[in-house]
Amino acid sequence: MDFTSFVGIISGLALIVSAILYGSSDISIFVNVPGIMIVIGGTIAATLFTFQFKDTMAAFRAAAIVFTQDKQNPQQMIATMLQLTRVARREGLMALSREKADSPFLQRALNMASDASDEDYIRHTLQADIDSLKMRHYVVQDVFKKMGMYAPAFGMLGTLIGLIQMLSQLNNPEAIGPAMAVALLTTFYGSILSTVIFQPIAGKLKARTILEIQTLEIIRDGTIAMMGSNNYLAVYERLSSYVPAHQRKPVGLRD
Amino acid sequence: MDFTSFVGIISGLALIVSAILYGSSDISIFVNVPGIMIVIGGTIAATLFTFQFKDTMAAFRAAAIVFTQDKQNPQQMIATMLQLTRVARREGLMALSREKADSPFLQRALNMASDASDEDYIRHTLQADIDSLKMRHYVVQDVFKKMGMYAPAFGMLGTLIGLIQMLSQLNNPEAIGPAMAVALLTTFYGSILSTVIFQPIAGKLKARTILEIQTLEIIRDGTIAMMGSNNYLAVYERLSSYVPAHQRKPVGLRD
Amino acid sequence: MDFTSFVGIISGLALIVSAILYGSSDISIFVNVPGIMIVIGGTIAATLFTFQFKDTMAAFRAAAIVFTQDKQNPQQMIATMLQLTRVARREGLMALSREKADSPFLQRALNMASDASDEDYIRHTLQADIDSLKMRHYVVQDVFKKMGMYAPAFGMLGTLIGLIQMLSQLNNPEAIGPAMAVALLTTFYGSILSTVIFQPIAGKLKARTILEIQTLEIIRDGTIAMMGSNNYLAVYERLSSYVPAHQRKPVGLRD
Amino acid sequence: MDFTSFVGIISGLALIVSAILYGSSDISIFVNVPGIMIVIGGTIAATLFTFQFKDTMAAFRAAAIVFTQDKQNPQQMIATMLQLTRVARREGLMALSREKADSPFLQRALNMASDASDEDYIRHTLQADIDSLKMRHYVVQDVFKKMGMYAPAFGMLGTLIGLIQMLSQLNNPEAIGPAMAVALLTTFYGSILSTVIFQPIAGKLKARTILEIQTLEIIRDGTIAMMGSNNYLAVYERLSSYVPAHQRKPVGLRD
Amino acid sequence: MDFTSFVGIISGLALIVSAILYGSSDISIFVNVPGIMIVIGGTIAATLFTFQFKDTMAAFRAAAIVFTQDKQNPQQMIATMLQLTRVARREGLMALSREKADSPFLQRALNMASDASDEDYIRHTLQADIDSLKMRHYVVQDVFKKMGMYAPAFGMLGTLIGLIQMLSQLNNPEAIGPAMAVALLTTFYGSILSTVIFQPIAGKLKARTILEIQTLEIIRDGTIAMMGSNNYLAVYERLSSYVPAHQRKPVGLRD
Repeated sequence: MDFTSFVGIISGLALIVSAILYGSSDISIFVNVPGIMIVIGGTIAATLFTFQFKDTMAAFRAAAIVFTQDKQNPQQMIATMLQLTRVARREGLMALSREKADSPFLQRALNMASDASDEDYIRHTLQADIDSLKMRHYVVQDVFKKMGMYAPAFGMLGTLIGLIQMLSQLNNPEAIGPAMAVALLTTFYGSILSTVIFQPIAGKLKARTILEIQTLEIIRDGTIAMMGSNNYLAVYERLSSYVPAHQRKPVGLRD
Repeated sequence: MDFTSFVGIISGLALIVSAILYGSSDISIFVNVPGIMIVIGGTIAATLFTFQFKDTMAAFRAAAIVFTQDKQNPQQMIATMLQLTRVARREGLMALSREKADSPFLQRALNMASDASDEDYIRHTLQADIDSLKMRHYVVQDVFKKMGMYAPAFGMLGTLIGLIQMLSQLNNPEAIGPAMAVALLTTFYGSILSTVIFQPIAGKLKARTILEIQTLEIIRDGTIAMMGSNNYLAVYERLSSYVPAHQRKPVGLRD
Repeated sequence: MDFTSFVGIISGLALIVSAILYGSSDISIFVNVPGIMIVIGGTIAATLFTFQFKDTMAAFRAAAIVFTQDKQNPQQMIATMLQLTRVARREGLMALSREKADSPFLQRALNMASDASDEDYIRHTLQADIDSLKMRHYVVQDVFKKMGMYAPAFGMLGTLIGLIQMLSQLNNPEAIGPAMAVALLTTFYGSILSTVIFQPIAGKLKARTILEIQTLEIIRDGTIAMMGSNNYLAVYERLSSYVPAHQRKPVGLRD
Repeated sequence: MDFTSFVGIISGLALIVSAILYGSSDISIFVNVPGIMIVIGGTIAATLFTFQFKDTMAAFRAAAIVFTQDKQNPQQMIATMLQLTRVARREGLMALSREKADSPFLQRALNMASDASDEDYIRHTLQADIDSLKMRHYVVQDVFKKMGMYAPAFGMLGTLIGLIQMLSQLNNPEAIGPAMAVALLTTFYGSILSTVIFQPIAGKLKARTILEIQTLEIIRDGTIAMMGSNNYLAVYERLSSYVPAHQRKPVGLRD
Repeated sequence: MDFTSFVGIISGLALIVSAILYGSSDISIFVNVPGIMIVIGGTIAATLFTFQFKDTMAAFRAAAIVFTQDKQNPQQMIATMLQLTRVARREGLMALSREKADSPFLQRALNMASDASDEDYIRHTLQADIDSLKMRHYVVQDVFKKMGMYAPAFGMLGTLIGLIQMLSQLNNPEAIGPAMAVALLTTFYGSILSTVIFQPIAGKLKARTILEIQTLEIIRDGTIAMMGSNNYLAVYERLSSYVPAHQRKPVGLRD
């Protein structure tokens, strides 16, 4: 459970509800089922039209991941790579293929290292994997960015419909206020969806991608470094650029 | 028939129509032929002015393609390339020129491979084809992006015309409401065209391009890999970066 | 005469005029000379301030070109390059300097080829010419993009002036409507100029640049290809990447 | 204490307060606690949702730094590098490891230089450090850019809530004005936060990053220059590109 | 004196003043000292907060330069480089160090050429100077772009303050109009500052930078060309890419 994401969305929505309740105890005037339908339905319809069906599905799956605890941790991956360097040093690169890795990317890197593949080949193959992952994640973020754009657009369409209907039958001046209130509701729904939900999800997915790419780059650089030299310190030096200077710990040369 | 595109556009328009019908049973107040003409006509006029005539036509043809089933499938292209690797292994690279390919790009790649052309030459020629295709597709997407920009702009021009006419002859206060309703209609038309039609088409064309480029890159990399080594597994390793790790299937080494 | 540009601008303006006439037979309420002056004059003033004088003049000359028939035609340039390859094959590269080319760029390329200049030298010199042309065209497009931004900004300034004057002397409520109508006119002028004229011109200039660059790239690549090999087919293969696969014609090897 | 940042924010807020006091001596109408809560709380909630918790914290720490005096000074770093060149010239590169540097980056560079590491290795390692710092700073700036976007969005949500409540109960026409004033307050808060606080902080952080990167590049280039040649003047020439021509002082060749 | 910049800003402001006078002979309703103070003061405060103090000062100095005649002239610099080529041809590269150049950049290039420095070294050093200049100019343009963004933002803040004060004390309906007029004045000031002053200055600074960079690139390429070959024509060919084909004059080979 990613606690901050959870706190973020819940407190965002809670603040809006309490602002409504503070102004008036009647929350029902903010509920308009057809308005909710046109904004949510329209956003989904335009999104399905815009993207490949499988990309949209991948995006919704990714959105669920946003609320799970993040498993990527560059510091820990550096420790893992150093541990593997020790193995390579004691038992040779061949021994790396016997190590079990959680990440298929790390497994692939270890397999290639134990096969004594060419350094250039390893670099290009792992880079191709990273580029391909960047591309897929880009599409997923794009789905939520576009939803954050479609939601207010459908909100405005709903408001225009309400305004046009109200203005075309001005026979009852007393009804103007409430009719405009209803018309504004879809703009309100569209803004909430965009500001409180879609844009933050797109942002979080981007932050996650940056972290995941960094972890993969540590694996790529670590694998290449441990092939070029099984010097523990050299591998550490190479990987320590990935953490800020004040977080780099002096590495004991024991083992 | 691309089912999702079809569902997307139909349900988007249906939601807007039902929102109109929900508010009032009279849909006729949303129909204004001169308003429709200025928004659609103006958008087409500005688009014709902005682009080369043949680019505009290419864009409209591409829009039709959006509703057809997509033929590009990276997974299947990987299978095809592996199948061709088996042919090359059994019968030599020369045999590749006898294979019939649906895609002119694949045909060209096979011809060059069977001619035993230089690897660099093949890479540059195929890359030039890919770059040229990217460029042409970019122009086509740009047509719809610009239409998605011109439509609301002409909608606003229509609304300004209506407002100015209404305000300049305020002798009948009762007519203000209906006149403003009519003036707002062009803004409404422009927003619908942009949000429900032009922007999603531009997005879908972009998604299709990404997929097509990926397929071409698989052909490019696969051809080069099978020339460098007719090892089935090496070609598979090279191409598997194009699919997410969890979709990569272990490859049997039969054959 | 570029027929589409002409049709685009005329029909765009005609649609707006007919929308005005449809709403009221009195077109005079849309004519406000001081308003036209502040929008057009302000746009010109800000543009002169923003750009070098010679860049602004170059932009206006380029705008005139937009309405002339485009002479660039990639397909025809490929044919020309193939024709020159035949000459080079029969009579040697030296013969190329005797050919007369319409384009100074092609002339320069032929001169360098007949001088048997180094391939790298030719590539870099022609690329420098292309980069320099891209740069100059970029500035010209930028003039119209900025005009498309300044026009609505001055339109809004005019409307603000009108609104402030009207609001500060509300002694005659009957005059409010007509005064607001007049105030809105400058916003209307600014939007028309931007949407119907400046933005399409900027777009068309960009489309022309893309086409011109492509033609120059065909000359560059063709010249280098014909120097490396006077094989007719090899030059054709190299240049055919510039046209979509379905437009490539099989080339007879006669001659 | 960074005096300009301090003057900037204080005078910005003071101007707004005096504009309020000038219009009316009653500042209390601009204070609305629930409104302040929804704008500030909502912005924080959406930011927590958008970014990793540690990135948000890093951003707030960085914001505090904005008000401290900047320690980076390219001119002084050039002097330091020249001083170190003199040390290297007199005592050899080995002596560099005995120098104490404030900056961990400079310390690392000196260590590598005194180890007589390969020039390429030094360049790549230091560049990796610079890239990694750019990346971390980019995320921190992004936090404030997004806050500068969320604040007005929550401001608008608050205004929409107020408008909808006011319009739905129009029974007391006299209350319309004050109710709208209250509704507009959240838009006002959101604009102040964005314009006077978040956007300038994002800008200042970017300016600081540019300066810090420049200092690191001086260290990188200086270290490499002093390894290639312990000629004082050559190192100076290399580093002087980092300062404008009119600030370059002729360097005495004493020592 | 740069005549066009001067004409641009004067005629832009004159048009706005005449539009005001045309609508009403009373220009005093457009003068509101507290409003001017909040817009100008706020813009300056936010700019000081956003940038380093020395960058803001550098920007204001650069703005003054905008009104001076531009000294950069690519055509003339090409002539200068050709003249220097003649000197190098007659008297040798050593003689170049005796030439006096106005530009410190040209002086530096000549010094390096007469020292017979390595071509790569000259290219990299001059490129580093160009990159560093680009960077400093970028910051200066950015100051005016941000001011063009802050001015309307403070204008809107001023208008919000006015609206909120007016709406909260609606006891005198007759005062509504004039109060709104005053509230709109700050939006008017912000728009003028942005459209007529800050954005054009940012644009002009960018145009100047492009021209200056081009001049420096002519020096860089000319210096390298004259070192590789003291053939007058070869240097001319190399530099002529910087001017459009129709402005290239055939070069007499006299001398």
